[in-house]
Amino acid sequence: MRAVWFEDGIVKLIDQRKLPLHFEIFEASTPEDVAFAIKEMVVRGAPAIGITAAYGMAQGWLQRRNMDEVFEILKNTRPTAHDLFYALNFMREGISRGGDAVKLAEEYAESIIEKCRKIGENGEKLIKDGYRILTHCNAGALAVGDWGTATAPIRMAYRNGKKIFVWVDETRPRLQGARLTAWEMQQEGIEHAIIADNAAGYFMRKGGVDMVIVGADRIASNGDVANKIGTYEKAVVAHENGIPFYVAAPISTFDFSLSSGDDIPIEERSEDEVLFCRECRIAPHGSRARNPAFDVTPAKYITGIITEIGVFKPSEVEKLKKL
Amino acid sequence: MRAVWFEDGIVKLIDQRKLPLHFEIFEASTPEDVAFAIKEMVVRGAPAIGITAAYGMAQGWLQRRNMDEVFEILKNTRPTAHDLFYALNFMREGISRGGDAVKLAEEYAESIIEKCRKIGENGEKLIKDGYRILTHCNAGALAVGDWGTATAPIRMAYRNGKKIFVWVDETRPRLQGARLTAWEMQQEGIEHAIIADNAAGYFMRKGGVDMVIVGADRIASNGDVANKIGTYEKAVVAHENGIPFYVAAPISTFDFSLSSGDDIPIEERSEDEVLFCRECRIAPHGSRARNPAFDVTPAKYITGIITEIGVFKPSEVEKLKKL
Repeated sequence: MRAVWFEDGIVKLIDQRKLPLHFEIFEASTPEDVAFAIKEMVVRGAPAIGITAAYGMAQGWLQRRNMDEVFEILKNTRPTAHDLFYALNFMREGISRGGDAVKLAEEYAESIIEKCRKIGENGEKLIKDGYRILTHCNAGALAVGDWGTATAPIRMAYRNGKKIFVWVDETRPRLQGARLTAWEMQQEGIEHAIIADNAAGYFMRKGGVDMVIVGADRIASNGDVANKIGTYEKAVVAHENGIPFYVAAPISTFDFSLSSGDDIPIEERSEDEVLFCRECRIAPHGSRARNPAFDVTPAKYITGIITEIGVFKPSEVEKLKKL
Repeated sequence: MRAVWFEDGIVKLIDQRKLPLHFEIFEASTPEDVAFAIKEMVVRGAPAIGITAAYGMAQGWLQRRNMDEVFEILKNTRPTAHDLFYALNFMREGISRGGDAVKLAEEYAESIIEKCRKIGENGEKLIKDGYRILTHCNAGALAVGDWGTATAPIRMAYRNGKKIFVWVDETRPRLQGARLTAWEMQQEGIEHAIIADNAAGYFMRKGGVDMVIVGADRIASNGDVANKIGTYEKAVVAHENGIPFYVAAPISTFDFSLSSGDDIPIEERSEDEVLFCRECRIAPHGSRARNPAFDVTPAKYITGIITEIGVFKPSEVEKLKKL
């Protein structure tokens, strides 16, 4: 399954705002449409944002647009996920070397999806038969294609016949867990239960969680990880309860230019995402909200980072720069 | 403001399921109606549940019902909040001594509300000018009457002219923070912002939270506190960030018969509270959910417990038994 693909010059995306109750395809005919899809979260998840941006560049190239302008339009959509900038730079460099942008974008997409399969292989070894795994947000096929990042080891373990159970944090405010991860688990047939984000600690303390696996939006050189808001709380509580906490991400998510997670720009989105839940207003008229979309989990709470080239301690991230 | 009152033999309640967008009064004409109101959360919050049960007993007494039966009907509503059992025992003992049940219930309600005023006085001293206070769920006037428990020190500080700001955790799944606490803060004119529960840790780590004050549903002899699901996570993350974490509760919430919080029965409510957000279904059809309504915060994460007779360390709870 692909969250995004390129067909006859059109960038096509599963409209993730509509899932799980409606399955609709969003068609982006211009780089501006592609930028809208990223900004409004038709597509989300760091690797999928990267792939979408690569297709957006290919579309601009086919339409003989000014590529510096297309680059800027796509860049100024969301500030946190590193894959966006990684993909745009990959495309710009390839095009400047005279490459076919459509082929480059397809190559980028295939390579990320293949990397996620390897993340699955590397992470699967950490999962024992009978494990109950907690995940936050959606770092699944909808965030990448096929395997996902955090879900790659989970899918691989399931397909290898291990009996597993997944705790799905609903992940307010945008409910990517309840809407998207639960939908993916159901499609795959993996046993799962959705919980309010507030309940993760309860089940951890009760001994109901054997490990946590989450995705990442950007990883700094010191091993700090930016991911969906709430990840930090889960990591601290997992640490307090001696539960292994893993991050799964391809190298495209690593930003070696940043020495610390505190340097990662954190997007603050519209307060309406908090004041409303789907279409229902939940807060009194006149009340305001704050809505940071990501937080930074310091390296000390992270057991390991599962990548396409192996599982590393956060303290080993620095050395990956040289690879 | 009262969340519940007794008028012409009818127990009247602000229907807290409808707030903040609709203000409606729910009228309970029989103890069965009262039990329904407690169970379905027309009224919620430990002290208010206690007061409602006291009125339910008074109503049964006026209607010349079998009081053992009325006691059982009201008792078998919600299992966690200690005030429910405390109020029912207070009423049964008073009635068995030949007391007027209506007067007893009014006396109970007045005494709880007066205790909350004292909680406000005792807790207010902990709040410095300029403090940004985080609260979870609703332990406000709607959970007690007038002052509330966790909100009593906040209201008192505000009325004394201290400049304060309140972070309101929305508190999924029932959204008592976004719906009820925000509404109370707005009515009182206290500056506040609603946040997704996931964002509390973000603001704590950023240095944006000076203290946390929450209510309690039951406190064990060792100082462990059962409160709304998510409280445990907030306490662990506050502790990790060196932020004082206070619990505000009247002595009626203390259950000295339990030596540890692990003995407190935790209610698990309908999975629909997680699968739906207000009227909107958010999860795929076929996915299941788990919905524990409370969690237990171990004493070690709690800085102090603010009561009507003073502020105590959790380790001092045992000695309060002798008072």
